[in-house]
Amino acid sequence: MTSKLPRITSFKVVAKSRLFQIEQLDITFSNGNQVEYERLKGSSRGGVLVVALKDLDTVYMIREYSAGVERYELMFPKGRIETDEPVELAANRELQEEIGFAARKLTHIKSMTLAPGYMGHLTHVVLAEDLYPATLEGDEPEPLEVTTWPIAQFEQLAMQEEVTEARTIAAAFIVRAILEQRK
Amino acid sequence: MTSKLPRITSFKVVAKSRLFQIEQLDITFSNGNQVEYERLKGSSRGGVLVVALKDLDTVYMIREYSAGVERYELMFPKGRIETDEPVELAANRELQEEIGFAARKLTHIKSMTLAPGYMGHLTHVVLAEDLYPATLEGDEPEPLEVTTWPIAQFEQLAMQEEVTEARTIAAAFIVRAILEQRK
Repeated sequence: MTSKLPRITSFKVVAKSRLFQIEQLDITFSNGNQVEYERLKGSSRGGVLVVALKDLDTVYMIREYSAGVERYELMFPKGRIETDEPVELAANRELQEEIGFAARKLTHIKSMTLAPGYMGHLTHVVLAEDLYPATLEGDEPEPLEVTTWPIAQFEQLAMQEEVTEARTIAAAFIVRAILEQRK
Repeated sequence: MTSKLPRITSFKVVAKSRLFQIEQLDITFSNGNQVEYERLKGSSRGGVLVVALKDLDTVYMIREYSAGVERYELMFPKGRIETDEPVELAANRELQEEIGFAARKLTHIKSMTLAPGYMGHLTHVVLAEDLYPATLEGDEPEPLEVTTWPIAQFEQLAMQEEVTEARTIAAAFIVRAILEQRK
């Protein structure tokens, strides 16, 4: 079993920008060890990542410019949850903004972290089914390229050079596991 | 195909702490749109995540306190790459520090990002095989709990409450794909 939870004995914000806040913590472990940690807080209420089924064998994906790596990345539609917006509504909004479809069936299947040692940020994975054309104006600086990928080839997807994001790969395989469970 | 790469027209560091640096960028897209971005730079040279095979059916995992979410998370051994340290050596070092084994065979199978829109940080996934007992002193504040998980049950792993990290889930399925390819 895991040990007794460590205790946070002090906390302060050491840096802050428009999107991020860096926090410094002193933590005392159950064995008495005291350690200084830094962690990052995003300004948002977490995000949604939407795996939308075109049909039972195919998902929609987008190519979006990613400033952290300075290139285009192949990924699933995603975005921040707005204040007081339920997870499923946020997913359906992002879907309409980014791929031009809405979904009649939205299922929240997992909440993921990026680097739980340093960030509390949650990404809620939503499976979107039974799509119909519907568009909302997003805040994208350029139109996104929408494409598709076969569910049977997620292994190949994971090895693409333009697919590096752990959330993309994790969400793909979780969705496939859930679709296989249903059979 | 993807558009012409956007151009970064200005760059400045807006906040800095021991571990993190927040950068502000002005980016001009090929359609002329100008957008202000923030991105995060870690202080490290990237990290390694090690999936170590106990046998052909089983991987080693650890439970580690994660300050971002304030609880224990079930994950693969991982850590920062030290200056001038090759990826495979970093993986073998983390393995000895965190689970008490070294590997005779180390294969770098994928480099993943966390959130490529906001971070350039890379996590190099290394498959470790042909293990033997070997220990190095790490900087962990308390001993890590070492456990194992069956490769055939990665779907169940992905749905565990104590498994939220996208890198854990992604690395598990990539390793399984590679092991299946070999058959």
